[in-house]
Amino acid sequence: MPTIERYPSKSHARRVAKHFSGLLPDAFTDDKPRQILLLAAARLKYWPFSDQAQPFRQNRNFYYLTGCDLPDAYVLYDVELDRLVLFLPPVDKEDVMWSGEPITITEAKEEYDVDEVLYADVIKSELQAIPNRIVYTAESLVGDDHRAYLKDIELLVQLQSSDQYLLEALEESRLIKDDFELRLMRKASEISDNAHLKVLSTMSLQTNERHIHAEFVYHSMRAGSKNQSYDPICCTGRHCSTLHYVRNNEEIAGKQLLLIDAGAEWNNYASDVTRTFPISGEWTPEARAIYELVLEMQTACESLVKPGAVWDDLHLLAHKILIRGFLKLGIFKGGSEDEILESRVSAAFLPHGLGHTLGMDTHDTGGRANYADSDLLFRYLRIRRKLESGMVVTVEPGIYFSPFLIDPYLNGHDGFKGGHYIDRDVLEKFWEVGGVRIEDDVLVTDNGSENFTKVPKDPDVLSKIIKAGLKKTLVTV
Amino acid sequence: MPTIERYPSKSHARRVAKHFSGLLPDAFTDDKPRQILLLAAARLKYWPFSDQAQPFRQNRNFYYLTGCDLPDAYVLYDVELDRLVLFLPPVDKEDVMWSGEPITITEAKEEYDVDEVLYADVIKSELQAIPNRIVYTAESLVGDDHRAYLKDIELLVQLQSSDQYLLEALEESRLIKDDFELRLMRKASEISDNAHLKVLSTMSLQTNERHIHAEFVYHSMRAGSKNQSYDPICCTGRHCSTLHYVRNNEEIAGKQLLLIDAGAEWNNYASDVTRTFPISGEWTPEARAIYELVLEMQTACESLVKPGAVWDDLHLLAHKILIRGFLKLGIFKGGSEDEILESRVSAAFLPHGLGHTLGMDTHDTGGRANYADSDLLFRYLRIRRKLESGMVVTVEPGIYFSPFLIDPYLNGHDGFKGGHYIDRDVLEKFWEVGGVRIEDDVLVTDNGSENFTKVPKDPDVLSKIIKAGLKKTLVTV
Repeated sequence: MPTIERYPSKSHARRVAKHFSGLLPDAFTDDKPRQILLLAAARLKYWPFSDQAQPFRQNRNFYYLTGCDLPDAYVLYDVELDRLVLFLPPVDKEDVMWSGEPITITEAKEEYDVDEVLYADVIKSELQAIPNRIVYTAESLVGDDHRAYLKDIELLVQLQSSDQYLLEALEESRLIKDDFELRLMRKASEISDNAHLKVLSTMSLQTNERHIHAEFVYHSMRAGSKNQSYDPICCTGRHCSTLHYVRNNEEIAGKQLLLIDAGAEWNNYASDVTRTFPISGEWTPEARAIYELVLEMQTACESLVKPGAVWDDLHLLAHKILIRGFLKLGIFKGGSEDEILESRVSAAFLPHGLGHTLGMDTHDTGGRANYADSDLLFRYLRIRRKLESGMVVTVEPGIYFSPFLIDPYLNGHDGFKGGHYIDRDVLEKFWEVGGVRIEDDVLVTDNGSENFTKVPKDPDVLSKIIKAGLKKTLVTV
Repeated sequence: MPTIERYPSKSHARRVAKHFSGLLPDAFTDDKPRQILLLAAARLKYWPFSDQAQPFRQNRNFYYLTGCDLPDAYVLYDVELDRLVLFLPPVDKEDVMWSGEPITITEAKEEYDVDEVLYADVIKSELQAIPNRIVYTAESLVGDDHRAYLKDIELLVQLQSSDQYLLEALEESRLIKDDFELRLMRKASEISDNAHLKVLSTMSLQTNERHIHAEFVYHSMRAGSKNQSYDPICCTGRHCSTLHYVRNNEEIAGKQLLLIDAGAEWNNYASDVTRTFPISGEWTPEARAIYELVLEMQTACESLVKPGAVWDDLHLLAHKILIRGFLKLGIFKGGSEDEILESRVSAAFLPHGLGHTLGMDTHDTGGRANYADSDLLFRYLRIRRKLESGMVVTVEPGIYFSPFLIDPYLNGHDGFKGGHYIDRDVLEKFWEVGGVRIEDDVLVTDNGSENFTKVPKDPDVLSKIIKAGLKKTLVTV
């Protein structure tokens, strides 16, 4: 028996097979062949004209069925026998000289929750030994080499036609996290919490956006998160209105706010956290007003996270609170809350969705977005279904002051309506706020929700932490 | 006139064209067509089943001709007209909402040393406007989309046949660095120097190899080096005998030495530096002996770097010093220096080459390695030519105690000879040393060399820096 707790790949394989059977049309299963699911790991690739390997990122679907982070491996699941087989890449002796001894078959059997471990060069004979087999894979879920090879020996009879079903089975399975996955995600969140706190408390060291980026990465790496879940966004001042700003290279002096959207990864599981705070520790009245409004949106939406909640409704609530707040602040005028909501002008300030599913991918599976939605307000919303227990979602409302986003409304261009509700004079005072986003990672539980993200978001607490850090006589080593 | 000094892409284009003309067989040039060189930038790619971009690394050959770090761009050089044209990717309005405004044509003309800037959707008409043209590119130097497209309009008549000549022209051009490139490389080296020093002086903070990795990355990033030239190697104890160890995740307590091979990148130009030092600040006698021997090899070889020097000779010198040192230490016995050299048993302890060319790639162009060399001693040597002024090379001898590498010699397996020169009892005392490598980045100048790397390597100085750091009461923030 293994002495360590292992990634539950066997249970994942069963879950995927169950979803898959439910999705597969009868035509495929009439003669009851042996269903075999086959997936490939990501390949190790090199930069063009270079002997340097590209950064490796495991195929998430492969990891889900193996817990194995090796490149060029394969996994096979025999549904009838409930038999999960991991195929390791054959040992390259030349490579051992440079990179050290690879994992042995015996070690792999101990480490991974699978029934059998073999080398990849026996896939063919393993498959041929299964009578009346039918191998299901998705075109893109098996490596290039093996695709041609398996086609050649006519093993992939349902290759094309099963694509959508197998992918959907994987997506739906991954959507609902089990306890093991949740522990990995809580750990990723803990590392992010600490790194965000370190950023808040080291503002005396930072004069450029790249210092913020470095600080976050440093504390993540020290805690064992070698990879970030995504390229961090570290912006200041007006740049905070660029949603996916990744240049992270401007001086921060003289700016009001700093927005950092960064999340550590733990064993391929993501966290995704955003905080916005005043660089000096002191809020300007405009920044504080916008921050409090976003916090109200975030708190209200988060409190509604529970099984059965309709994500569209939460997203709509965020817009309603924004509109009410903007009317109070005078940025909107000349219409009722309903009229303004109807015009969709609030999308000029909150152009993205309220959040997305979170898992191995930062934008995880199962959200069922509709990017072709004719309604601007919902076009970029990445979750369009009811919440279920075991889903992890981000709750991340924001308010941005981007000329690029707002001008079309002000000018009535391209069918953007409601610009007349914007008071240009009042708006003028807010450009320097740039943008505010607050983002937490939230698990849907049986009765409600659990917020993984513990970084403070109360504006006064943030001020206090930043000022305490600024006061310190820091020893730079 | 531009107010900033620009990357000298025009001069690079001329240099490549000159090399190319010299290499091109007459058959291609008899009818004197207009020679057009065409290269593509690297493409922005996404992870499979994800909306997350993969880390971007510019095509080095494209950067050499443009100084432009944008994905999905193209460059065309009309040799006869001496006209360099940069094609920017067309603006994606949807993307602007998320990522901000891209560079304009006017800004690009200011920023890049090219004659014309256009959008990529006019490549076809631009090429068609050139009479009696012949477009040279290497199969792999133009993006997939454009390859099919340009073939379609029969513009790439010499596509296949010019591959090797254009690639070689680029390789040879890039081998000799100009002043602008050298300034970029000196800057990369400065950042690496500082980061290595920070690692040395913060050993009181570090308990795991990953902390070393984090420390180096932190100081590189703070100084503006967002990317490392390569994945850092941070190993301790016996792991230092694994040449490309990148796990970087072991506890460091109780080990003798720490080896860190890490280099910051600056504007796509690499540095590549290795230091090895005692974790506690105190050398064991065995570690000190091996370190001093490697330092002697490194100093002797570096002092011979100058135009006309034959790299094979320097590499051989390193082995000779190793053999003499091992005889003194008693690790080798029972043979003369020449006999032991002849047996190639020193390759068991120094399996890799003395160094490689350095530039935009860590293992840069023009080295003319011969990995099929039947002589074990030279098989992995990445430079097999005389040094010339303007080349930058690494000088990186090492000595490793790896059972995987040494056992075949001890057992006489696979034709590995000279195992009988090894004294097994004496060797026993050195396993814990693991491995030592010292690596500097050295420019070949007209009269000799310039060493870019300023991190101390004197064993007593290293001890002093480490101990001073360990004594400090560090404030961790």
